[in-house]
Amino acid sequence: MPVNLEVPARETLRPVAGVDIGTAMAGLRKANRRDVLVMRLPPGTAAAGVFTTNRFCAAPVQVCREHLAASGGAIRALLVNTGCANAGTGARGLADARASCDEVARLLGCEPAQVLPFSTGVILEHLPMQRLLAGIETAVTGLGSGDWLDAAQAIMTTDTLPKAASREVDVGGRRVAVTGVAKGAGMIRPNMATMLGCVATDAALPQALLARWVREAADVSFNRVTVDGDTSTNDSFVLLASGASAAVVADDAAPGAAPLKAAIVEVAQQLAQAIVRDGEGATKFIAITVERAASPAEAAAVAYAIAHSPLVKTAFFASDPNLGRILAAIGYAGIADLDVDGIDLYLDDVHVATRGGRHPAYREEDGQRVMKQAEIGIRVVLGRGTAATTVWTCDLSHDYVSINADYRS
Amino acid sequence: MPVNLEVPARETLRPVAGVDIGTAMAGLRKANRRDVLVMRLPPGTAAAGVFTTNRFCAAPVQVCREHLAASGGAIRALLVNTGCANAGTGARGLADARASCDEVARLLGCEPAQVLPFSTGVILEHLPMQRLLAGIETAVTGLGSGDWLDAAQAIMTTDTLPKAASREVDVGGRRVAVTGVAKGAGMIRPNMATMLGCVATDAALPQALLARWVREAADVSFNRVTVDGDTSTNDSFVLLASGASAAVVADDAAPGAAPLKAAIVEVAQQLAQAIVRDGEGATKFIAITVERAASPAEAAAVAYAIAHSPLVKTAFFASDPNLGRILAAIGYAGIADLDVDGIDLYLDDVHVATRGGRHPAYREEDGQRVMKQAEIGIRVVLGRGTAATTVWTCDLSHDYVSINADYRS
Repeated sequence: MPVNLEVPARETLRPVAGVDIGTAMAGLRKANRRDVLVMRLPPGTAAAGVFTTNRFCAAPVQVCREHLAASGGAIRALLVNTGCANAGTGARGLADARASCDEVARLLGCEPAQVLPFSTGVILEHLPMQRLLAGIETAVTGLGSGDWLDAAQAIMTTDTLPKAASREVDVGGRRVAVTGVAKGAGMIRPNMATMLGCVATDAALPQALLARWVREAADVSFNRVTVDGDTSTNDSFVLLASGASAAVVADDAAPGAAPLKAAIVEVAQQLAQAIVRDGEGATKFIAITVERAASPAEAAAVAYAIAHSPLVKTAFFASDPNLGRILAAIGYAGIADLDVDGIDLYLDDVHVATRGGRHPAYREEDGQRVMKQAEIGIRVVLGRGTAATTVWTCDLSHDYVSINADYRS
Repeated sequence: MPVNLEVPARETLRPVAGVDIGTAMAGLRKANRRDVLVMRLPPGTAAAGVFTTNRFCAAPVQVCREHLAASGGAIRALLVNTGCANAGTGARGLADARASCDEVARLLGCEPAQVLPFSTGVILEHLPMQRLLAGIETAVTGLGSGDWLDAAQAIMTTDTLPKAASREVDVGGRRVAVTGVAKGAGMIRPNMATMLGCVATDAALPQALLARWVREAADVSFNRVTVDGDTSTNDSFVLLASGASAAVVADDAAPGAAPLKAAIVEVAQQLAQAIVRDGEGATKFIAITVERAASPAEAAAVAYAIAHSPLVKTAFFASDPNLGRILAAIGYAGIADLDVDGIDLYLDDVHVATRGGRHPAYREEDGQRVMKQAEIGIRVVLGRGTAATTVWTCDLSHDYVSINADYRS
């Protein structure tokens, strides 16, 4: 059961001028579900991406990096499949990823290096190429002006709901759309990238600016969520600027640059949080804020130690204010000179711990009240400096075990 | 259900000359179960310990460190309680730990600094001092020459079985006993120490030698097991030499030193593995060996990445050879220059992956056969150097979630 997350209403997802979407049911892993997406982009589109830091990165991720470099970001199509990650597949996996780009390029009349491939699903298995190539042809035949909900549905794996978000902003007097989709529910601890996210705008941006914005947006969105601490082999987040709206943003100081960037960050954060809300087996949505850390890295280390602790996560599942487990996680987060006497811990508005121990006024029933909520804030004040960060995560339930024990069956 | 673990037969646990054991049912958390242990040691005993690296270390751990320093290791008693960890309890927790040592010292006629206190159980709650002091008196009254199975039972928390191990070795013509107990099932990822382990011998050893041996034994036993990656606030491992057998080991070169040290390591490893076999919800016992790493730290990083991955652990629970999850964990273990083309992965005798991808001869049914076993070996060959290590862990099952969602109720 996703936490406060619904299927986005189709009419709230603004089409992005110039971007066409086509999907197919190719039967890659399961019958009768969309599993192939082709997104066609107009000439003049700029694209930039960030990708997994996992050393076992998937073949499509390697090809994405090559094609972005070779084309200078002048991308004309995305190809996404679900059901097979094409990771841990060696030389044959690379050849398969390249062959699928070749087929998209042939059908759309562009260079193979202008196609970015993305795969998610089971690792260590080869792509069923015949079915995939047939699916590509179907998807290209069906290309129509952008229905982003179709796109969101076509990239789902263990997701229970499609994930999409959209904003409209004014750039130099022109209305510009910012719309994105994402997928992911397990193997989620993006590290410099995310499971699979794509945000597009019809504003025109130079590729260098886009390349910086995609990193900055990832750092405050997809790079701040975790479900199970498992960094995937396939994490990818791309930002696309079709330019079809004729609104131009040349640099950070241009009119409309600030609201456009804010809209991109908002869409990315909404998508990233949607991944956590639909985290495998999630029943709670938990925001962990660490304040007054000595450095951003230290703040993140403490936040992730809490977010990854199976004991903290099962306590949230049980609505059990066994909050000493949070202190234990702070204590093993790797800060060698941490003085626990300077630490305060809050659960929403409830002051739980101070000076290394239980707050004198803390009452179990106050902790219990907050633990029963579907949305919970943990705030840790380290008292060491001025850095802060927020990480979003979910609890660990029986359903997480069921989903991942049954995933391939 | 513990994995291939049984209650040790009482007659296999050799008493350690000079060591007396007393227990009590003090009702600290639950009625009608042993929850207090007092171990009396003879004059001339040397003790050394290693303790948690968690910065939120418990009050008893702080007092242990103080007392070992103040007494030079000339310890006369251990006091262990279960049901309350006395961690995250601030100044009052420290005072409580000291007051319990004072009481043991008064009853036994030694200095408070010659008593080492240990607590495990719930964090962020205060010790019920009145019941604990009454329990201490009962335990001291019942002190009798060493029944180590009683000791093992008295320190259990979520353990389903008592954990004890024993060896007998020849030291310079004298028979010497090496016997130990341990507890722990959850919040297990000891780091330079362990949950709670105590190994005693009736040989006589200088404290400096003992202090080195306890670190070396911990590094190949308790520091190589993990259940859930949560490093506890209370991890402690102590090594005791009562000297009552009159067998003396002055240094590493002394007659009998090598077999004695080997026996200590064997007992420590058996206890550490017993903790994993009885890991919360465990249904599989998994040994992860990483070979040909560039450094011991690198080998451990890869082994722990695999051991802590919830996706790997749930796949083992399901007996599902979804082995790409192991590659993903290797890939995010933090080795920046890892060349995946040099990696081989084996499941027992089955060659699963080579050169960054699926081994051409690997068949799913071979993986399936091994996954169904109760004891499984994972072997990763990194092809980078000569370092190696082995880490022992268990799977992640529904029962882990149940146990930790219900722990305090």
